[in-house]
Amino acid sequence: MNNFTYKNPVKIIFGKDTIKEIVKEIPKTSKVLITYGGGSIKKNGVYDQTVKALEGYEWYEFAGIEPNPHYETCMKAVAMIKEKNIDFLLSVGGGSVLDATKFISAAACFEGSDPWLILSQRASIKKSLPFGDIITLPATGSEMNSGGVITRAETEEKLAFNSPLTFPLFSVLDPTVTYTLPVRQIGNGVVDAFVHVMEQYLTYNEDNTLLQDNMAEAIVKTLVEEGPKALKTPTDYDVRANLMWASTWALNGWIAQGVVEDWATHMIGHEITAFYGLDHAQTLAIVLPGVMTVLQKQKAKKITRLGKEVFGIEGTDAIEKTIKAVESFFETMGTKTHLSDYNLGDEAIDKVCQRLAERGWKLGECGNITSDIVRQILVLRK
Amino acid sequence: MNNFTYKNPVKIIFGKDTIKEIVKEIPKTSKVLITYGGGSIKKNGVYDQTVKALEGYEWYEFAGIEPNPHYETCMKAVAMIKEKNIDFLLSVGGGSVLDATKFISAAACFEGSDPWLILSQRASIKKSLPFGDIITLPATGSEMNSGGVITRAETEEKLAFNSPLTFPLFSVLDPTVTYTLPVRQIGNGVVDAFVHVMEQYLTYNEDNTLLQDNMAEAIVKTLVEEGPKALKTPTDYDVRANLMWASTWALNGWIAQGVVEDWATHMIGHEITAFYGLDHAQTLAIVLPGVMTVLQKQKAKKITRLGKEVFGIEGTDAIEKTIKAVESFFETMGTKTHLSDYNLGDEAIDKVCQRLAERGWKLGECGNITSDIVRQILVLRK
Repeated sequence: MNNFTYKNPVKIIFGKDTIKEIVKEIPKTSKVLITYGGGSIKKNGVYDQTVKALEGYEWYEFAGIEPNPHYETCMKAVAMIKEKNIDFLLSVGGGSVLDATKFISAAACFEGSDPWLILSQRASIKKSLPFGDIITLPATGSEMNSGGVITRAETEEKLAFNSPLTFPLFSVLDPTVTYTLPVRQIGNGVVDAFVHVMEQYLTYNEDNTLLQDNMAEAIVKTLVEEGPKALKTPTDYDVRANLMWASTWALNGWIAQGVVEDWATHMIGHEITAFYGLDHAQTLAIVLPGVMTVLQKQKAKKITRLGKEVFGIEGTDAIEKTIKAVESFFETMGTKTHLSDYNLGDEAIDKVCQRLAERGWKLGECGNITSDIVRQILVLRK
Repeated sequence: MNNFTYKNPVKIIFGKDTIKEIVKEIPKTSKVLITYGGGSIKKNGVYDQTVKALEGYEWYEFAGIEPNPHYETCMKAVAMIKEKNIDFLLSVGGGSVLDATKFISAAACFEGSDPWLILSQRASIKKSLPFGDIITLPATGSEMNSGGVITRAETEEKLAFNSPLTFPLFSVLDPTVTYTLPVRQIGNGVVDAFVHVMEQYLTYNEDNTLLQDNMAEAIVKTLVEEGPKALKTPTDYDVRANLMWASTWALNGWIAQGVVEDWATHMIGHEITAFYGLDHAQTLAIVLPGVMTVLQKQKAKKITRLGKEVFGIEGTDAIEKTIKAVESFFETMGTKTHLSDYNLGDEAIDKVCQRLAERGWKLGECGNITSDIVRQILVLRK
């Protein structure tokens, strides 16, 4: 097990009818900016619950944060914060809104020449505005971590950032607000969470990190058991609660501590989204089975373990069957797993590989996934 | 799943040679009081490493905190803190030293008539001194929670407290410092952690809390797989690291969120320790198989699940076999499971039941374990 230092200070407020609890967390004298997306929170009652809770506060709103949130959009929110002297942010929405809010909280206090440096150069975040969130979509785990991913539309770049100063102060998780989510978003969310765990688990595993491996499997088993139920019975509270909580745990940092991590699937997937706008989870569902196939020797021990512990697969061809089981699970969740399902082919492969070659990135836990290997992976996923 | 609100702000510093990291966490201007126990830290090098790290600080030491730490001892430390104007505590030792340090941190700032009220009346803790710890014994989980248990020697009472203000700021977990622990302490530690998980898992389970159940099993599987190895190969780093980390997770609060909890085994066990001075884990090893047997109908679903997932037991008599497997595991770890192993019998049973009857406690997740049921449990464990 590798050495690690980690602290996760997010206060989780979990359960039915908990949105009103935000008043205990936001100082009464705050000037609050509510950040949100395309307005689905106005249809499902979350906006109304939030506004009601904020009665007596001075608050403003910033709408229109898109999926795969844009740097350009974030900077408009920063301008508004400066104009209105906002001192507390409240993200209301899914992981994209929250990722954007994290970036906005840092960008609003950034003292360098350009907040874009936080993404392009990993410039250190030295100050941020306090923020909390009401999460409406179980998927990204953003509600209990300090990272985010932002896209610069202008240059088609999708880049990540992370800082101890961009943890939410609190996150409200009310599983009932997920009842009305479209099937596609539920499916995507489960796939996203599943792949988050894989990035922290499905590695070469020379080391013995038994607790973390057992915990990773605990999360994945929950997703595999409850995911399909969520599609069939959308208002089963416990199913939604288990999925929401499992998604949080898939990326709250704890299962990553002391272990080797991969993240190749995400890095490749980000490029597909940056060029073609696919949902984040769709790109993961395409790429992961390819990574597992091409890297199967390196990852053999863990793929075998995943098959046995999560899918009950043992015996001959266990690795092949496990990869197939992962792909089938994604399809069961309604997330298609091949480039052709999204009308992409050789041109897309060329474009992604060319950019990765230009960057010279060597991905994966062994730093051995060059653009040539990415090509092998993607060709399998046509 | 029940609603919950939880935040665990402890910074974990985990790994080889990490004691020196404390200097990054303790303000240089602090007046530090090192609290410790009987001096084993002077034999295994931990004291020397700590003192070396604190070079340049103004520091004092308070030794002699006993296992099942005494209120009377804690109050001596409080007097020293006031005399020397101490403003930072550093616990160096196992869970007893840390529990005592938590209590001392609160008692030193207590403004009521008598800090004993924190234990006897659950008086609210409104202030505490900051503290961190170097944990030397994987067992209690005290390094990542905000609770403690203190014994008043004078009246033979052992009582618990808890407060958001008694979380350690940081905890250093260096698995190598556990290499030299006596076999009895390693065995006890594994039993203690095992029973902590059971208190949060082995309940009536009407609800569906799949993630928490899977995570509880992840921790217990780690203890069952690694525990016996730790006795055979005391210097296997990964085994010690897995056990240390699993013990922390057994009681850091996360697997308790949203679930029903029991804690009857602990409450009964505390009385046995208070009267007869048995090790905490010894009392748990005695009591748990009795609780499982007497409450087997109520807990049937979870006992069956434990048997299957952790011990691979299925089919007829699965419940009986699982209870036996738990008892055997404790014995394998060197912790004896019957009252007679400690020269206790009917007199002890009478004494414990009489006190519980006087208190009128109704224990367990259904509040149905009266002193009569405790008698049934203990009679089985003679």
